[in-house]
Amino acid sequence: MTATLVLLRHGESEWNAKNLFTGWVDVKLSASGEDEARRGGRLLAEAGLLPDVVHTSLLRRAINTSELALAEAGRSWIPVKRSWRLNERHYGALQGKDKAATLAEYGEEQFMTWRRSYDVPPPAIEAGSEFAQDGDARYAELAPEILPATECLKDVLERMLPYWYDGIVPDLKAGKTVLVAAHGNSLRALVKHLDGMTDEAVVKLNIPTGMPLRYELGEDLKPLKAGGEYLDPEAAAEAAAAVAAQGKK
Amino acid sequence: MTATLVLLRHGESEWNAKNLFTGWVDVKLSASGEDEARRGGRLLAEAGLLPDVVHTSLLRRAINTSELALAEAGRSWIPVKRSWRLNERHYGALQGKDKAATLAEYGEEQFMTWRRSYDVPPPAIEAGSEFAQDGDARYAELAPEILPATECLKDVLERMLPYWYDGIVPDLKAGKTVLVAAHGNSLRALVKHLDGMTDEAVVKLNIPTGMPLRYELGEDLKPLKAGGEYLDPEAAAEAAAAVAAQGKK
Repeated sequence: MTATLVLLRHGESEWNAKNLFTGWVDVKLSASGEDEARRGGRLLAEAGLLPDVVHTSLLRRAINTSELALAEAGRSWIPVKRSWRLNERHYGALQGKDKAATLAEYGEEQFMTWRRSYDVPPPAIEAGSEFAQDGDARYAELAPEILPATECLKDVLERMLPYWYDGIVPDLKAGKTVLVAAHGNSLRALVKHLDGMTDEAVVKLNIPTGMPLRYELGEDLKPLKAGGEYLDPEAAAEAAAAVAAQGKK
Repeated sequence: MTATLVLLRHGESEWNAKNLFTGWVDVKLSASGEDEARRGGRLLAEAGLLPDVVHTSLLRRAINTSELALAEAGRSWIPVKRSWRLNERHYGALQGKDKAATLAEYGEEQFMTWRRSYDVPPPAIEAGSEFAQDGDARYAELAPEILPATECLKDVLERMLPYWYDGIVPDLKAGKTVLVAAHGNSLRALVKHLDGMTDEAVVKLNIPTGMPLRYELGEDLKPLKAGGEYLDPEAAAEAAAAVAAQGKK
């Protein structure tokens, strides 16, 4: 038995377009992000890759991406499950800050450390500040000590894995085709886990937006092919290069 | 303790606009149906009536209505539950037929009997025919004998109630504000149950599209006010009158 897992990173958001650090701030998709989501759905339909269930984060840019993609593929009716554990990395005090201004203020070394080191988080966000999530109704049922105030990629992996095992794996074991609609860093963390990537390798990994990435998993839930396969490999390679250059403008 | 239930009938679909019997055929919202859904979401937000969980049918016009309304209200992140038991009434052999042509062919008495009698279903749809649902993946896990081939409103009430008790009531008992995004007839059936309406009274009930209908329920899950309250009562009354006239053009 093999299981099919499809990863989909949300399309461009209003803050991606403005070059701001977003993290857990619940910004909307831009119009072009909505188009990316629909294109992702068409790719699924054309490949005959029809999800039986979708897992999303609690952030609208991932949720709305899944809704638009599934509508395009005629699969709006499938069961939906959500978890904060699929959220984007919490960017701490950087949330809401301009990326280019942050680069100019702190210099490239510090900037790239925060953006791309595996285990160095940015400074924590101040509780009650404009872009903090304390008081956000969607996290009201969580124990306060579990709500992050900043995260590095290692933190994301650690908080994402319990949902992988408890939420997603049972659907894969049941033979369902599973769509995970999430974020650059929660998906990088998942790919690191699936492909057994080193800490060094994952910091160089870029996952393009709106491009379904398909993994066939064996009985042991390890990929039959490392890295999976993009439904549109050429467009995915171009888009990944663009992501790598992001923040340098 | 009181519980808050909000009912939302989907906005205009492509087939409402074309005056065809729809039933279980999975047609899309029209552009104006999408606008209705967004307006419904704005009404929720303005009333501060923020759902904690949404229940939908398996039909995209109800699902997409809930998605657009919740996005407008900033509540895309709430848990989603779906059931075929919230589907529109199955219109049997009338599915896909023009309402005016059906009226002309069968006469007003037969037409109104099919549309509005409580316990007379239209002829059953033929398995495998163009607008039948056998073979539809979303019903693949159901025992075949439970899949309807036609329904009257009484049938809808009987198949809807198990989901009311097992799916929706537990959320209300847990103190959640519950949104149900469904269809003219599945919502009429629910309202009949809630308000204890007679078979005669419910056939005259019209529920307008895209207008959130709020019920406050007591400990016994009976409405504190019969009929609930529309968030925009004036617009709802006008819209209900328009629904009553439907099919007569």
